[in-house]
Amino acid sequence: MENSKKISFEVIKRLPRYYRYLGELCDSGVTRISSKELSEKMSVTASQIRQDLNCFGGFGQQGYGYNVEALYNEIGKILGLNRGHKMIIVGAGNLGRALASYKSFERRGFKLVGVFDNDPKKIGSYIGEYPILDIKALEDFTKENKPDIAIIAVPKTEAGEVALRLSHLGIRGLLNFSYTDIKVPEGVEIENVHLSDSLMTLSYRIKNKKQ
Amino acid sequence: MENSKKISFEVIKRLPRYYRYLGELCDSGVTRISSKELSEKMSVTASQIRQDLNCFGGFGQQGYGYNVEALYNEIGKILGLNRGHKMIIVGAGNLGRALASYKSFERRGFKLVGVFDNDPKKIGSYIGEYPILDIKALEDFTKENKPDIAIIAVPKTEAGEVALRLSHLGIRGLLNFSYTDIKVPEGVEIENVHLSDSLMTLSYRIKNKKQ
Repeated sequence: MENSKKISFEVIKRLPRYYRYLGELCDSGVTRISSKELSEKMSVTASQIRQDLNCFGGFGQQGYGYNVEALYNEIGKILGLNRGHKMIIVGAGNLGRALASYKSFERRGFKLVGVFDNDPKKIGSYIGEYPILDIKALEDFTKENKPDIAIIAVPKTEAGEVALRLSHLGIRGLLNFSYTDIKVPEGVEIENVHLSDSLMTLSYRIKNKKQ
Repeated sequence: MENSKKISFEVIKRLPRYYRYLGELCDSGVTRISSKELSEKMSVTASQIRQDLNCFGGFGQQGYGYNVEALYNEIGKILGLNRGHKMIIVGAGNLGRALASYKSFERRGFKLVGVFDNDPKKIGSYIGEYPILDIKALEDFTKENKPDIAIIAVPKTEAGEVALRLSHLGIRGLLNFSYTDIKVPEGVEIENVHLSDSLMTLSYRIKNKKQ
């Protein structure tokens, strides 16, 4: 059934949102849903939903709707969530702490296995169940625990060096919150998250909304 | 020159990134740049850049390239950043603190004017130069200071109520970090930010990258 090669990037970008909504429906015990109902819940058109979800084929049936759990699992597979990811966070400032405290990452298949910082005042203290580890232990830790994803939550000035260090340790994906776009060696994937981009999009929407 | 009605949503979504890059170029004293150079810097194709920026017309000249400052200012206008925004943050937990400490928002035209919380232990303490204000003072504060944007950084369970309260106070745009999609009254714009969506996209990219 999985056929991700043919799925466009625009559809892929919408998948996490479908995945979240379908997960909530599963939790509420909903077993099937029509594209019309899903469309009302998600505030997108029913035709967009049908078009997107038809990429995976076989889940929607006329007069029945979508099988919520099957679709949820299939999207999870396409996103590679079924394999599970081991994740570390580098940087235990306010943002690192906020991310380490966020329980829903684990539900999506991202298991936090370690939090690192270089500040002696922070090292050894806890964020929930996680002790803050010394960044000097990063090499030994990754050899032993083999995380495949790292969240970078260090200041802008340190981000490039940290990203390179993580890349050389075999981390396959980086989520970068350091407010600067980082380039990484071939073979490593990076998502640069810019919180101010959402503010700018919001500004555009305010400016252009119907009065 | 401004002609935003005809610009597609996909182009709009890319504008914040252009705006950030052009801002950095301005700061470095660069006055003009070819689409080829900008394309290398931004890791998108030169033809994509030409196509996107041609929407605004008149900034690219054969053999000259783009006038960096003029293009930066024009994109700022399209995004509504030139008007300036007054912003408040509701919720002074780790995420609220991280956002309040982020200096670059102001550079993009978003001036933080207040931070609120309902926790007596936090109220009165400072995040940098900002005192944490009692959420009870929200009504009086907004009447006096007229913020137009609010960042919601409260727990999921409180987010809906906070959003509604802000909407009734005349806030025009909400940036919601509470990990739940919120619907707001007509006339208020909301951007729901889901940090786990970026992780899911990263997972997809790791799974599908060329080995």
